[in-house]
Amino acid sequence: MMDAKNYVLEMARRSRAAALSLVRLSTSEKNAALLAVADSIVRARERIIAANADDVSEAKANGLKDAMVDRLTLTDARFQAMVDGVRHVATLPDPVGEQIWERNRPSGITIRRVRVPLGVIAVVFESRPNVFVDTAALCLKTGNAVILRGGHEALRTNVALADAVRSGLTAAGVPTDAVQLVGITDHSAVTELVRAVGLVDVAIPRGGERLIRAMCEAALVPVLKHYKGVCHIYVDGAADLDMALKIVDNAKVQRPGVCNAAECLLIDRGVADEFLPRVERWAAERGVTLHVEGREEIDWEREFLALEMNVGFVDGVADAVRHINGFGSHHSDAIVSSDEARAADFLRDVDSACVYHNASTRFTDGSEFGMGAEIGISTDKLHARGPMGLEELTTYKYKITGDGTVRQ
Amino acid sequence: MMDAKNYVLEMARRSRAAALSLVRLSTSEKNAALLAVADSIVRARERIIAANADDVSEAKANGLKDAMVDRLTLTDARFQAMVDGVRHVATLPDPVGEQIWERNRPSGITIRRVRVPLGVIAVVFESRPNVFVDTAALCLKTGNAVILRGGHEALRTNVALADAVRSGLTAAGVPTDAVQLVGITDHSAVTELVRAVGLVDVAIPRGGERLIRAMCEAALVPVLKHYKGVCHIYVDGAADLDMALKIVDNAKVQRPGVCNAAECLLIDRGVADEFLPRVERWAAERGVTLHVEGREEIDWEREFLALEMNVGFVDGVADAVRHINGFGSHHSDAIVSSDEARAADFLRDVDSACVYHNASTRFTDGSEFGMGAEIGISTDKLHARGPMGLEELTTYKYKITGDGTVRQ
Repeated sequence: MMDAKNYVLEMARRSRAAALSLVRLSTSEKNAALLAVADSIVRARERIIAANADDVSEAKANGLKDAMVDRLTLTDARFQAMVDGVRHVATLPDPVGEQIWERNRPSGITIRRVRVPLGVIAVVFESRPNVFVDTAALCLKTGNAVILRGGHEALRTNVALADAVRSGLTAAGVPTDAVQLVGITDHSAVTELVRAVGLVDVAIPRGGERLIRAMCEAALVPVLKHYKGVCHIYVDGAADLDMALKIVDNAKVQRPGVCNAAECLLIDRGVADEFLPRVERWAAERGVTLHVEGREEIDWEREFLALEMNVGFVDGVADAVRHINGFGSHHSDAIVSSDEARAADFLRDVDSACVYHNASTRFTDGSEFGMGAEIGISTDKLHARGPMGLEELTTYKYKITGDGTVRQ
Repeated sequence: MMDAKNYVLEMARRSRAAALSLVRLSTSEKNAALLAVADSIVRARERIIAANADDVSEAKANGLKDAMVDRLTLTDARFQAMVDGVRHVATLPDPVGEQIWERNRPSGITIRRVRVPLGVIAVVFESRPNVFVDTAALCLKTGNAVILRGGHEALRTNVALADAVRSGLTAAGVPTDAVQLVGITDHSAVTELVRAVGLVDVAIPRGGERLIRAMCEAALVPVLKHYKGVCHIYVDGAADLDMALKIVDNAKVQRPGVCNAAECLLIDRGVADEFLPRVERWAAERGVTLHVEGREEIDWEREFLALEMNVGFVDGVADAVRHINGFGSHHSDAIVSSDEARAADFLRDVDSACVYHNASTRFTDGSEFGMGAEIGISTDKLHARGPMGLEELTTYKYKITGDGTVRQ
């Protein structure tokens, strides 16, 4: 048997070859392939569901937590959503080939900056099987070859999904190796993937903080990531407090388990006496546990992902900015204020991907941003920041034309 | 004495604080600071030249190669070019604050995508002292704080330059720590810089391949880099051979020591009998040593940076593409052909930052591209590809405004 390194490198070489073919596909060829993939998944439905049932019963037998088992389970609704997702990606605009700008230079050359696929993308994910299909669709649409590595507890499901996706590709005349699943559970496979300089262009972890940190530590290829979402709502002294409470409620309660939910409420000391009691009544009504500064020791960097929230007190915008830049995760942070100048300062000075004025942090999302789909949210500053859609799965190249033009 | 880690982290914390002030500066304040920096360098001229003379004599005493000593030497012309460079950066457009797009979403939020500084940039360079001043100017213009680490042989010169630049900043009322020089020669300082996640946003090596590989191996922060320039000229079967020779001459001879000079000539076998003898006559006239396939063992990945060139033979565009993607450095590659369809295939399939049709690879350069200035050329695919000017020293953030808007 091949060792993990040779297995991964061999796979990456096939991806690289596939990438060269993908770059030649027209938008309509890629869309046709997406529809063929959706059809193929539908045809393989029974086999996929059966494989998933096996994974689920093994997970239960191994004592996996209920939340994990739930994430792993492919219900009818989830299966349908997965198929619909692939078909939806076929309807989205294709960023590849888009000309970003064109310049005619005095030297006589014409420079066109054009969007092109990134090449080979490695995606490492955990237990949700839909991630396999979503990611494959987004990469196919953008002409990228993708190598996927899922959690070992979902291996049977992922193998069945990979078979279906690859059959669809073959049926559409697209290189089957455009989508590959790492079929070995050896942990060193991930390490080899993120060290395959020249074969893998970028790695995208879609999972928890531990996975991401391990990948970054090992990586030689760029990693596009999102550690966590410690999002803040700062209620300014000049805030409409009704509005503030409405935004806090939406940001904390509407979907507490996601990265754009708020984890920390910062209140300007000038309105704390008036606002804190209202927040406490709201928390009691909504079942939100508050950790209030001065009453207990607070871990300001905590991402609860639950009906729990830190509450701190600050002296105005500058103090709020200091807190957020120091303890936040550079994801999404909001100010509630009727003072336009203070809001402008906050939006300028908070060093986060998405900064909000009088709106909920819950809007940080590819579809809310009009991207149509999302492969993740980046808390990095390079390449892509915030929600990453199809455009963020491309890079550009310069195409330069002359007429025997040489440099003087 | 502090150890290297604490020294670097303390420095990075000061940069982070400076970055927050820099983000608040208007374009005219930054331009005024650039002019103050230029004036300050002129005032410190004697001290800088004296420090450089000390570095140069020590370098000679230590037996440094002539080419290295030349690079280190700050001549009158280089001093003036350095000062002019800073003043030129003040005249360039400021990308910071530019709105990339604005969207009004059905939810009621308005999203503006706006260019912002990257934050804290670490630049590691080798012996040319002008890199210190050029880099400081580009970073200041884009509102980034910069930490510079130069070669130990140029330490006295860099200390004198840093003093002058920082005095200029202070005079202009800009935080002095916007520009910092690593004053210790301990090699682990570089390692600590590229591992300072959360304090350093990006590292840019400006030096040889060994330096870059060492930095990438250690790095936890993103590294924007350019390993080498193994640029190709492919002379197609449908090429105008006079034009081909003119382009080969320019790409190889005009300035052989730079990364966008051509290192490899690929000739379509269909025209090899006719073209090779012309190339050989040209090489003899121009003093270029040719390494011709079939006559000797050839290292196709070699970057000569000298009047030396590999010559290979291929069967058409697809074969040329295979060679270039396999052995090249993804920098700049050209096709000479009168066949538009073949040229289009080449430009689409060659996986390089800059792909040329009937023009010399020597145009890959920030000023030739109309960027006004350049901090380097990226052979990476993420964030920035090809020449990197001021815009490439920025990222973006999303500023979202609502009116108490919450997610449904």
